[in-house]
Amino acid sequence: MSVFEKRINKIKKTLDYSQAALIKDNNNVYYFSGMQNCEGYVLITNDEAYLFVDFRYIESARSICKSCKVIEFTKLFESLKAVLQQESIEALLIESECVSISLYNRFIKEFNSIGVSVISDDSLVKAINNLRIIKSDEEIAYISEAQRITEKAYNEVLNFVKPGVSERSIAIELEHLIRKNGAEGVSFDLITITGKKTSLPHGVPSDAIIKDGDFFTMDIGALYKGYHSDMTRTIAVRSCSDYQREIYDIVYKAQNAALESVRAGVKASDVDKTARDIITEAGFGKCFGHSTGHGVGLDIHEKPFVSSKSETILSENMVITVEPGIYLENQFGVRIEDMVLVKNDGYYNFAALPKELIVV
Amino acid sequence: MSVFEKRINKIKKTLDYSQAALIKDNNNVYYFSGMQNCEGYVLITNDEAYLFVDFRYIESARSICKSCKVIEFTKLFESLKAVLQQESIEALLIESECVSISLYNRFIKEFNSIGVSVISDDSLVKAINNLRIIKSDEEIAYISEAQRITEKAYNEVLNFVKPGVSERSIAIELEHLIRKNGAEGVSFDLITITGKKTSLPHGVPSDAIIKDGDFFTMDIGALYKGYHSDMTRTIAVRSCSDYQREIYDIVYKAQNAALESVRAGVKASDVDKTARDIITEAGFGKCFGHSTGHGVGLDIHEKPFVSSKSETILSENMVITVEPGIYLENQFGVRIEDMVLVKNDGYYNFAALPKELIVV
Repeated sequence: MSVFEKRINKIKKTLDYSQAALIKDNNNVYYFSGMQNCEGYVLITNDEAYLFVDFRYIESARSICKSCKVIEFTKLFESLKAVLQQESIEALLIESECVSISLYNRFIKEFNSIGVSVISDDSLVKAINNLRIIKSDEEIAYISEAQRITEKAYNEVLNFVKPGVSERSIAIELEHLIRKNGAEGVSFDLITITGKKTSLPHGVPSDAIIKDGDFFTMDIGALYKGYHSDMTRTIAVRSCSDYQREIYDIVYKAQNAALESVRAGVKASDVDKTARDIITEAGFGKCFGHSTGHGVGLDIHEKPFVSSKSETILSENMVITVEPGIYLENQFGVRIEDMVLVKNDGYYNFAALPKELIVV
Repeated sequence: MSVFEKRINKIKKTLDYSQAALIKDNNNVYYFSGMQNCEGYVLITNDEAYLFVDFRYIESARSICKSCKVIEFTKLFESLKAVLQQESIEALLIESECVSISLYNRFIKEFNSIGVSVISDDSLVKAINNLRIIKSDEEIAYISEAQRITEKAYNEVLNFVKPGVSERSIAIELEHLIRKNGAEGVSFDLITITGKKTSLPHGVPSDAIIKDGDFFTMDIGALYKGYHSDMTRTIAVRSCSDYQREIYDIVYKAQNAALESVRAGVKASDVDKTARDIITEAGFGKCFGHSTGHGVGLDIHEKPFVSSKSETILSENMVITVEPGIYLENQFGVRIEDMVLVKNDGYYNFAALPKELIVV
């Protein structure tokens, strides 16, 4: 049985008799059908799973998707309703987090007209997220490959990071290397920022030029078979002041301590607290305004969230980032981020790159 | 008055007394505030406009956004409710097409608790789309620059298109050239497909190798200051059969005729019909399964849609694509696409590249 069929079976088990689940989120459709970016719908009933795609994707779907019956539609709702009636479905669960109000209203109108009620609570989203939060060996291999591609590109681009070069040119070079090394693309708009701009946690690369004595922050990742990687390194260019080093060391210490706190059974909020306490005790609590990390997978930000408010208990084979930072407005910032796999006895760090401050 | 303030004023005019509009769609937030990708919210009341962003974006927002009062939030709903109460708002319009059911339920809970009702019909989305569908001079300049960047990259990559080269390597090279030529990124996952795969309207570049006699299709675009471009060319590699040329000529004729039908006052559905009739009369109606075009702007696909079902009458300064195609399963496909600006007396073609079949 394929990984896609196993996932479909787990959703089937959450369905009551005469219920079905309608899935439209791009990543979820891929998760159950193996078809990426096909603008399709997956319908799971007690007995069967269907993938609905239009003319543009039908050839690919027929060759790729083996877990679902593939149905070509010209009028989506006519096709959906025909199957719902044929399967005697009475209630349809939908994804509350990605179905818009407009689409929901359309669902109500179309499906109620054939006597099918629409269930818009969080139950389907929760059932899917409960599957997606624990990664399979295959998913771990894809995430690992995305990280390997990113690190290769990082090592290759380090030679380009020098005074006189623009942030944007580093971003372009990195993106090209990530693609050439085998990724489908980058995980997100790469952050490659220098000097004062490193105080912006989500700064956008511009024509700003790297100067001697700058901190340079790279928050980068690759996309491989639909799975993301995420990593941040802050490095010094040519020289580094004592104050920069002092701040770096606090973040470094916080990041390592948080990592060492990761294992199955630990609260995600405690990992956040471990990092936050060290930064707060050093007097910079107000300069660490974001949470310590997040899950990574088909989405770059997904469950579990590693924040003070998280109620998640970490489990084996969750993938999370650990990325504390200190941001000093109009001066500089430091963030260090690894992506790790939660294990029963600790964690596996996908990142193999050193974290001691380097001066290039 | 800036372009952002003008847009805000137009939304203000659609509001009843004591109503406000809450905007969260990424592109819409940019459209009214000038802040890109900030995960923020814009709130427009009768008297004022506000941009709510968190810690990560506050420095940028303060320097970039002049059309709104910039508010830093730690708890979004507390900040929003404080302003709603201070402004004595009684009803809040939201974007029905991008607010999910989950978020809508949260809105209801939070805003009803302070006596503010939530209006989830299509009125706000329609008001915003009515603005966005007509492009300003500034927007036209950005779209034009995105197209110029794409064409430069296209001309540069043509030398690489030859037997023995993979689809993927062309995609990577194009993406790099588009970035190097000044784009923020590509408009969408570039389509660079060869041989039989050209029969897939949305084929994904793979390791498939270009062969002598292949048709090679490039559907490509760039992103510049948040605005997209979109263009498709199909070319022959080394040689071309009579049948390939025959199919190409039908699409070429259909595309030209559809272009010539474009001007303000014409129905978008008639532009579709012009292209479709020519392809149908030639006997290939069933091999043209998608619509003839779509609007382009902050979204790669936006209103107006150029399809048989569209009810839009074209107006001056709409931007649309004209992209008929013929797709012969297991053989090959042809699509030719230009992006044009609708004018009162016709159209301006953003694409300057020739469309006669070239053999490289």
